[in-house]
Amino acid sequence: MEHLRVSEAQHVISTSITRLGTETVGLEQALGRVLAEEIRANRDLPPYDVSAMDGYAVRSSDLPATLNIIEDIKAGDRPRLVVQTGQCARIMTGAQMPQGADAVIRVEDTQSLTDKTVQIAKAVRAGNDVRPQGEQMRDGEVVLTADTEITPGVIGVLATTKTSQMCVYRRPRVAILSTGNELEAMGEAVDPYKIPDANSYALMAQVQALGITPVLLGIARDDPDELAAYLLRGLEYDVLLVSGGTSVGVHDYVRPTIEKLGVNMKFWRVAIRPGHPLAFGCTDTTLVFGLPGNPVSSMVCFEEFVVPALRQMMGYSRRYRRTVTARLAHAIKFRAGRTEFIRVQLRDDGTGYVANATGTQSSGVLLSMAKADGLLVIPSDSNGLAANEQVTVQLLDGTSYQSELGFKE
Amino acid sequence: MEHLRVSEAQHVISTSITRLGTETVGLEQALGRVLAEEIRANRDLPPYDVSAMDGYAVRSSDLPATLNIIEDIKAGDRPRLVVQTGQCARIMTGAQMPQGADAVIRVEDTQSLTDKTVQIAKAVRAGNDVRPQGEQMRDGEVVLTADTEITPGVIGVLATTKTSQMCVYRRPRVAILSTGNELEAMGEAVDPYKIPDANSYALMAQVQALGITPVLLGIARDDPDELAAYLLRGLEYDVLLVSGGTSVGVHDYVRPTIEKLGVNMKFWRVAIRPGHPLAFGCTDTTLVFGLPGNPVSSMVCFEEFVVPALRQMMGYSRRYRRTVTARLAHAIKFRAGRTEFIRVQLRDDGTGYVANATGTQSSGVLLSMAKADGLLVIPSDSNGLAANEQVTVQLLDGTSYQSELGFKE
Repeated sequence: MEHLRVSEAQHVISTSITRLGTETVGLEQALGRVLAEEIRANRDLPPYDVSAMDGYAVRSSDLPATLNIIEDIKAGDRPRLVVQTGQCARIMTGAQMPQGADAVIRVEDTQSLTDKTVQIAKAVRAGNDVRPQGEQMRDGEVVLTADTEITPGVIGVLATTKTSQMCVYRRPRVAILSTGNELEAMGEAVDPYKIPDANSYALMAQVQALGITPVLLGIARDDPDELAAYLLRGLEYDVLLVSGGTSVGVHDYVRPTIEKLGVNMKFWRVAIRPGHPLAFGCTDTTLVFGLPGNPVSSMVCFEEFVVPALRQMMGYSRRYRRTVTARLAHAIKFRAGRTEFIRVQLRDDGTGYVANATGTQSSGVLLSMAKADGLLVIPSDSNGLAANEQVTVQLLDGTSYQSELGFKE
Repeated sequence: MEHLRVSEAQHVISTSITRLGTETVGLEQALGRVLAEEIRANRDLPPYDVSAMDGYAVRSSDLPATLNIIEDIKAGDRPRLVVQTGQCARIMTGAQMPQGADAVIRVEDTQSLTDKTVQIAKAVRAGNDVRPQGEQMRDGEVVLTADTEITPGVIGVLATTKTSQMCVYRRPRVAILSTGNELEAMGEAVDPYKIPDANSYALMAQVQALGITPVLLGIARDDPDELAAYLLRGLEYDVLLVSGGTSVGVHDYVRPTIEKLGVNMKFWRVAIRPGHPLAFGCTDTTLVFGLPGNPVSSMVCFEEFVVPALRQMMGYSRRYRRTVTARLAHAIKFRAGRTEFIRVQLRDDGTGYVANATGTQSSGVLLSMAKADGLLVIPSDSNGLAANEQVTVQLLDGTSYQSELGFKE
């Protein structure tokens, strides 16, 4: 049976995806979504020349000089008087520049003589500490293009243009199904002959991390009719994640059952470790991922194949986990032939990131994933890595923050 | 007036914080929280020796040999028979090893002769492809310590221990207040003499990015009584963020008003750019941050001071934005004396990250923040950076994913 390379499998998935439709959300719900419309400025900002500092609005040609203070202007005020030669206005950050003045002198560069006069010893050029009208945005110009990911900074720009509602790509509806007679549901009593269903919940959390609330369908037993009934429910969603049940074994009902339901299966095997077996198919309306029954393998396959797919559906241009370069703390032996993902912890030793494998890499040990900061990627043509070798690590959830400040102030 | 260094200000804030109390949440709501209790295994996992592969359970001392298949064992089955010399059992991944057998031969390493016999040409050691009882966890052992951040992998471990409810640190209640006569609220008509209130919403989104839903108090005008009424409401929360109104100007009511309300102000100035002015104080129950009125400055100060504070309250050991090393694409000139944060975009040129400043760095231009991938940190003793110099960049929200796969497969 042919094994696709990781990027080939990603390509097959990607070409099966059409971006989802759009919906309108309020500014309070928009963080993390992707804009489906462009946003234009609805005014000049600043709406007029404003002071960039607390100080005095002056005629630059007057300086240095002792000037008469004709007015106090604070943000939101309209200046009443024109600044003539020998005059200035006391002005606050963000306040409108009065007519006649062309520069601002910061208050710390002046000496107050009386309440009505100020002494300015230095000269400045026209425009000093003035923010010109339209510097931030010009009425009518496009300030945010469609396909912009809505970060906090973008929320600030949307508020600036008074965009209280906006069109964004909708999120996929995702269903999660576990399969296997050996699985014990969360609500069931502990049975020493069963294995708790970790996959449904680990996948739930991976989906939640993308801002999507998935539906857990439950556990389908190894029975074709029961499985078909669960799969039919799953095909009502945009994405169906099925874990377990796709191995080569004789007790495998998933493959025939899923094909009988009209799912066009695109591949059944990928050269990835851990990650055996991994399958993908689709109907006109649903993507179906067959993930390994092993929780670590299932989580790794989710990261490599499902994350980019879900993000593509939601309109993101950034689809892949961020990678950083690290130095490997110790040698790693393994067999060539598949792209391998090693769970590692990262620390910064002052010269950069150092990667350490998180204990046993047995795909049965979910704690290795729980403790991991990232996935070290070993190319399929590599026969092993030496200590101190430079490696690439994909950062996992929870690692966008670090324990140390990380910079020299 | 004394300017604290960034780390001094962070230290003052940090020592004013006590971690918040705890609450119980369900597994579906636990992602991203911090555990406030340790979690122990409630059984051995695997509960017995299991096969790690689809294949045949054998007596390793028999091999190589042609063996009689006495039973089919799939995951969840209890083996009925004991494997004797010359015998084997067909076994599935995750299924219990039958008595007598001590190793598994993968199906691809065998040749099926009849439905009842299989030929195995290779020999293996005892334990081959067997996952021993308790490999993943041992009944009673601590599998997650208190203070563990709940990532998707941790959710999987919690599901494995059937932990449907758990004790986590609660999230702070955060209130956001903007101040200034010049501000125009979201619901107000466009007034060319006003500035839209971007700060409330940019801060809202920064707080939301930490998993907290803040309360927007609105806009307090430059009037001591109105301001005092708003501040009093804000002091009912765990954290109050006030933007604007803390400059040295004569129209500044915030400082006297806030001190009259019993807030113990710890500092009013930090040597950070952009970020002028920045203040911090607290009561017994509320942390109060006075953030700059300028949206870019406000956002930068939030990242450097409020993010670590909120994360400390919630029990995270990782409090600071992740940093990466980058090569600077172009020279940057600036004045020494303050730690400077330059908004940059990052790209990977194949040898590592390259940082480019996002257009104008005027603190008036919020788009520079909306377009930024990170904040390049310039130490306060630096007089400028040359092109190609190695720099440190803090990653901002939205950058935990990237456009390219980023690894060689």
